[in-house]
Amino acid sequence: MGNPFSFRLAACDGGARLGEIETPHGRVRTPAFMPVGTQATVKGMEPDQLRATGADIVLANTYHLMLRPGPERIAALGGLHRFMNWPQAILTDSGGFQVMSLAPLREVDDAGVTFRSHVDGTMVALTPERAIEIQILLGADIAMQLDECVKLPADRAAIAGGVRLSLAWGERSKRAFERAPAGRALFGIVQGGDDVDLRRQSAEGLVAMGFDGYAIGGLAVGEPQDVMLQMIAEVVLPADRPRYLMGVGTPDDLVEAVGRGMDMFDCVLPTRNGRHALAFTRFGPINLRNARHADDPRPLDAESSCPAARNYARAYLHHLFKANEMLGAMLLTAVNLFYYQELMAGMRAAIGQGSFEDFCRRRKEDWARGDLPPA
Amino acid sequence: MGNPFSFRLAACDGGARLGEIETPHGRVRTPAFMPVGTQATVKGMEPDQLRATGADIVLANTYHLMLRPGPERIAALGGLHRFMNWPQAILTDSGGFQVMSLAPLREVDDAGVTFRSHVDGTMVALTPERAIEIQILLGADIAMQLDECVKLPADRAAIAGGVRLSLAWGERSKRAFERAPAGRALFGIVQGGDDVDLRRQSAEGLVAMGFDGYAIGGLAVGEPQDVMLQMIAEVVLPADRPRYLMGVGTPDDLVEAVGRGMDMFDCVLPTRNGRHALAFTRFGPINLRNARHADDPRPLDAESSCPAARNYARAYLHHLFKANEMLGAMLLTAVNLFYYQELMAGMRAAIGQGSFEDFCRRRKEDWARGDLPPA
Repeated sequence: MGNPFSFRLAACDGGARLGEIETPHGRVRTPAFMPVGTQATVKGMEPDQLRATGADIVLANTYHLMLRPGPERIAALGGLHRFMNWPQAILTDSGGFQVMSLAPLREVDDAGVTFRSHVDGTMVALTPERAIEIQILLGADIAMQLDECVKLPADRAAIAGGVRLSLAWGERSKRAFERAPAGRALFGIVQGGDDVDLRRQSAEGLVAMGFDGYAIGGLAVGEPQDVMLQMIAEVVLPADRPRYLMGVGTPDDLVEAVGRGMDMFDCVLPTRNGRHALAFTRFGPINLRNARHADDPRPLDAESSCPAARNYARAYLHHLFKANEMLGAMLLTAVNLFYYQELMAGMRAAIGQGSFEDFCRRRKEDWARGDLPPA
Repeated sequence: MGNPFSFRLAACDGGARLGEIETPHGRVRTPAFMPVGTQATVKGMEPDQLRATGADIVLANTYHLMLRPGPERIAALGGLHRFMNWPQAILTDSGGFQVMSLAPLREVDDAGVTFRSHVDGTMVALTPERAIEIQILLGADIAMQLDECVKLPADRAAIAGGVRLSLAWGERSKRAFERAPAGRALFGIVQGGDDVDLRRQSAEGLVAMGFDGYAIGGLAVGEPQDVMLQMIAEVVLPADRPRYLMGVGTPDDLVEAVGRGMDMFDCVLPTRNGRHALAFTRFGPINLRNARHADDPRPLDAESSCPAARNYARAYLHHLFKANEMLGAMLLTAVNLFYYQELMAGMRAAIGQGSFEDFCRRRKEDWARGDLPPA
């Protein structure tokens, strides 16, 4: 079914790369933004609406799906694509990051991590082998190795321990992935916190093993943007493999990271902010809860390709959030995912035309100018 | 803009009537079911999805909209149709019923009703004149008179008092409605509880005043179905005006009431039940929270014209509700509104072909047979 995984670079402009990933479930245009479908649904979006925003691929969370409804059940139902009615590509994370951030109790040792389920309180073990088995059961087009993401700030020894463990788990993940159906891909994850040397060590170790793609993990966890960008810049990854910056980010983060050679991103910002009345627009963020919108007949952006941005008055969106109506979350989720996908499409076009720097400057200027007052 | 209000009867089959209402915002095929858009949104549905279910008209609640965002504000924003991005017909209720059921404090006298807003605690007065003014500001195609709906069970004197007051308010509503833009319609509301004589008196009084249409109110408030059907059968209303049974009902209620000459309905059942995991299907209701669906790969109804009923496994819908994902509410709202609209379309087709009784029998048999077990 579909094509085997491959990556093709079409153009470069400075550090920015234009490319295409082939997967068993279709083509992913890069730089790509992956909306987050935590529990086998991007909150508030039907799959056809999600596709209409321009998304080629979504991310689903192994941690959540292993606990509920369970990977064996999803496999028996025909896999995650059929389960969530999303025929395009899916990347799954390994579950590791969310065990660290969500499980009420957890213990890490060389074998893996044991944690208490937040759903039913049972103790669950996640090893590199089980993380891969789950992702194979789900049918992910791109699977991620299990890694250990050390919380920053941390001392060098703790970060180094995370790098060592992640490399060992990367090796075991790779071996376990040999049982995956042909055509699917496994990415290794660079750790190393905010330590340049450890980041480089981590990358070198992974590249020596050889993965289908490489992710940079453990960033966008509260550190300043310049630290994040420095880590990206210092890590050396093969040019012929996609590079995925995990959990990033703001529109500005995306532009800066693309300029430094990153190809793939995921983040809950557009969806989570949408549910909380914050719209991303060409003219910067707009908080629809603000009373100044109560009588504003203007749409969010009359020129947007997003129907939700064109067809509803700001006053109506404001009303929906004041009245706690779910349509508000639905519409702003769509607005924000359109914005993110248009941003990626804009970057791709600019890279292809060799005008990436211009594009970045114009976007910054538009945001700096801010939302226009009513006429 | 659009046509003035009119009603045309196309066919009768026994007591059941097939017709068309013209409004300034398009045609309403009757018998018609009006989804409830309480706060200027049918919860969980975008307007184009709502239209795709077959809805020609929605109901909006004056009580909610007068408190938030306010009728003057909606008028300044271009009226309710533009506000909620729904270009088809809108019927608004008078606010009276919801004052009685929702306001934390209220006082009724001949002048009107005074109540405490559940939104901000201020005291608000609703008179027949103000109820009409609000509905004109909203731009309703069909407005309802203010009435007093007495809670059952009640003694005859209380019910008679409600009839007297509702008739007086009907007269005043009618006078106030003379200021409405041309082409809009005002319906009177028959009260009288479960007392046949009072129901008849109420209807006679209203018919003597002359309204564009007539509603039967104060039913479907907990009384047995046969009492409701008896009241409908005993009330005499002009054949050349649409008849609207307020707040009704279950699929069975709708079929029985159409058989007794009712043309219009509204009810929160399909939307509210949808948000609570109860799906209406050709084979009866299905509770998707039930664990028996957890591994069921079948869609709700592979033959439905509703994409949500065809494209998702019951196991997935079950998962969405267990995981508290809003997509569950969105999909089942769509499933249920499609079901209701298909039921109305089926009745309309049957009346046109003189096979209404057959249609009713087949529907009952399908529901009695119940949901099929997995193959």
